[in-house]
Amino acid sequence: METVKLHLAEKSRIYSILIGEGLIEEAGRLLQEHQIKGRILIVTNPTVAQWYLQPLLLSLTTAGYQVDYIEIPDGEEYKSLEQANRIYDRLLNDRYDRKTTLIALGGGVIGDLTGFVAATYMRGVRLVQVPTTLLAQVDSSIGGKVAVNHPLGKNMIGAFYQPDVVIADVTTLKTLPPRELSAGMAEVIKHGIILDENYFNLVAAEREAILKLDSNFMTYVVLGSCKIKAAVVEEDEKETGIRAYLNFGHTIGHSLESITNYNRFRHGEAVALGMVAATRIAVKTGLLKDASLIELLEKCLTGLNLPVRIPELAVTAICDSMNLDKKVEYGKLRWVMPKRLGEVEIATDIPLDVVQGVLTEMGAI
Amino acid sequence: METVKLHLAEKSRIYSILIGEGLIEEAGRLLQEHQIKGRILIVTNPTVAQWYLQPLLLSLTTAGYQVDYIEIPDGEEYKSLEQANRIYDRLLNDRYDRKTTLIALGGGVIGDLTGFVAATYMRGVRLVQVPTTLLAQVDSSIGGKVAVNHPLGKNMIGAFYQPDVVIADVTTLKTLPPRELSAGMAEVIKHGIILDENYFNLVAAEREAILKLDSNFMTYVVLGSCKIKAAVVEEDEKETGIRAYLNFGHTIGHSLESITNYNRFRHGEAVALGMVAATRIAVKTGLLKDASLIELLEKCLTGLNLPVRIPELAVTAICDSMNLDKKVEYGKLRWVMPKRLGEVEIATDIPLDVVQGVLTEMGAI
Repeated sequence: METVKLHLAEKSRIYSILIGEGLIEEAGRLLQEHQIKGRILIVTNPTVAQWYLQPLLLSLTTAGYQVDYIEIPDGEEYKSLEQANRIYDRLLNDRYDRKTTLIALGGGVIGDLTGFVAATYMRGVRLVQVPTTLLAQVDSSIGGKVAVNHPLGKNMIGAFYQPDVVIADVTTLKTLPPRELSAGMAEVIKHGIILDENYFNLVAAEREAILKLDSNFMTYVVLGSCKIKAAVVEEDEKETGIRAYLNFGHTIGHSLESITNYNRFRHGEAVALGMVAATRIAVKTGLLKDASLIELLEKCLTGLNLPVRIPELAVTAICDSMNLDKKVEYGKLRWVMPKRLGEVEIATDIPLDVVQGVLTEMGAI
Repeated sequence: METVKLHLAEKSRIYSILIGEGLIEEAGRLLQEHQIKGRILIVTNPTVAQWYLQPLLLSLTTAGYQVDYIEIPDGEEYKSLEQANRIYDRLLNDRYDRKTTLIALGGGVIGDLTGFVAATYMRGVRLVQVPTTLLAQVDSSIGGKVAVNHPLGKNMIGAFYQPDVVIADVTTLKTLPPRELSAGMAEVIKHGIILDENYFNLVAAEREAILKLDSNFMTYVVLGSCKIKAAVVEEDEKETGIRAYLNFGHTIGHSLESITNYNRFRHGEAVALGMVAATRIAVKTGLLKDASLIELLEKCLTGLNLPVRIPELAVTAICDSMNLDKKVEYGKLRWVMPKRLGEVEIATDIPLDVVQGVLTEMGAI
C-alpha cells in the first residue's frame, strides 16, 4: 500500500490517499485508523454494488460501524440535482446527523454527486471516496472538486470540498470494462504531458502492462498520477492558478460531451480528443515549436484504444458550447496549451478560425 | 458609517461589514472600493424591490457596473432548492461566468438563498449581502451560513460561504413592518444574553428609541450585534465550539417554525419563545441559579412586542420535531442554556419531561 499526503496550507488540513490491492476488504480498519466516527451512508450504483458493496458493508460492520447504503442509477445523466435531492431525502428521513460520513463507492459520477451532497447536507458532513474506476482513482476523487450537472452545462453546480480519506483499491480495475480503463488512461497521459515528461514516457512505453492490468504497474500508475495531482492541488486548491493546467484537453472535451448529451463519449475519450485538438492549436499558434508531439500523443492514445479523430459533429455546435464552460473568464475562453512535453501554458486569445480549422482537420463538419 | 472587520484566521480572509445610513445609494462606490469586478446579478423580492432596487441599480450602473436582477417571491417557503434552480437557470441562460458577483438585496430568506447559489454556482462566485431587515443586519447576513430549506427541516441543505462585503443600510429599517422590527430585536436580545450583559441592559432600557427607530440608536444596535457576532464567528467559523452559543433559543424555536410550516411565527418570534423556554429549563435543571432572569427576559421581549407564551400547539409535535434539528449530535440534542445574564453553556442531557413541563407551563397543550 502506498500513501500520498495532500496538504492544503490554506485550511491547514491533511488527508490521505491510500492506494493498493484489496483495500476495500480492509476499509473498516482503515476508516478507524483515520478517526472516522458516527453513522455511515454508502452511495453507489448497481453496477459497482454487485461487486464491491457486500465486501465493503462486511468490512465496515465488522469494524463496528452502523452503515446503510443508497443506490443511484448508473450514468452521467444521474449526476443531477434531482438525485442529490433523493439522497437528502434519505438522509433526513433516516435522521442522519451532522456527524454522518458519506462514502462514495463508484466512479466519477458517484464521487462528484456524493461529494456535492456531503458538502451541502447540514452545511457539510464527512466524506470518504472509494473510487472504483481508473478515472476516479487518478483524477476525480482527489482535489475536492464536487458537482452536479445542469441541463445547460456539466459541473455547473458544485463546491470545493475535500474528502477525509481516499481509498483507491486497484483490484477494482479488474472488473472495469476495457473502454473505461482506456478512458482513465486519458487523464494519466494528461498528467504526464502537463507536468512530467518521464512519467509520460514510461506510461507510453508500457501499454502491454496497462492493457493486461498488471497490478504492480497499475499501482505505480495510480500513485504517479495521484502525486502529480496532489502537488497541483496543494499549490492551488481553488483553481486560481496552476490547477487550471489540469483542464488541459477539457475545453473542447467538455463541449464534445455536452453536445452529445454525455452519452456518446466517455469523459476520458472526450479529453483525449480535447488534448489532440489543444496540441494542434498550440502548433498552429506557434506556442508549441515541436510538432512531433502531436504524433507522439496520438500514437500513445491510439495504442490505448482512445480516439484521436472527431466523428461527424458540427464545428459550430462545438464552438457554441465552449462559451458556456466554466473556464470562460470575463467573457474570454482560457486554453491550456502544451509548450513542450511536460510543460503547459494558459492562453486566452486563440482566434476562432484556428479552432475551427483544427476541429475540421480532426473530422468535425 | 461604522465598520466591523471580520477576520477568519483559518482561511486568512478578511471582509468588511459596513453599517450606516443611506449606504444603498453609495453601493456602487463602496463595491469599487472593495475591489468588486465583473458582472453583477441582484437577487431580491418584490416587497424589497419596490423601495430599494432602483436606487441600488442606479448607484451600480453609475459606477460602471453591468448589472441585472432577478426577483424571488416573498416568503420563507421560497428559500428552496427549486428557487435556487431558477437562479442557476438564469445565470446559465445569460452566461454569467465564474467572476460574477451576486448581490442579496433583502432579508434573511434572500440572503440565505442567494448565498447558497453563490456558494455553489460554478463552485463559488462572489457574494455581497445588502440586508434590508433588522434580523438580516444583525444576524443572518454575517458569518457565512447559507442554506435552503427542505420539506423535512429548515436550513438542511447549505454551506459555510463568506460574503465579500456586507452593506447594512439602517435607513431600510424605516420601511420594515413593526412585526419584522420586533423579530429582529429578538436576535439582538439573544446576543446580549449570551455574551454581553451591558449591551442587553442598554437595549432593554431603550425600548422607546428602538420603537421609534432613532437612526443613531439603531446604528448603535446593529453595530453592537455585529461586533458580538463577528467575535463569535472569528473564533469558530464552522460551529464546532462557541458559535453554537448563537443557537440560544433556536432548538425549540426551529421546532415551532417547522411544525407551523414557517407561516405562523416570524423567525425572531420563534427564537423569543425558544429563549424563554431555554431559560426556564435552565432554572429547572439548576444551571441558572437566579430565576429572576426569566422575568427580566420576558419583560424585555414583551416590551418589544415579542411573544413569551406558546399558543395552543401540541407538546409532542414540538418535541418530535426537535430531533431532526441539525443541533442533534450523535443522536443527542444540544441545548444552549443561560448560566447568568451574559453567559451560556451547552448541555446535552436534558430530561424530556423537563422540556415537556416547560412547554406546558408556557401554554403548549
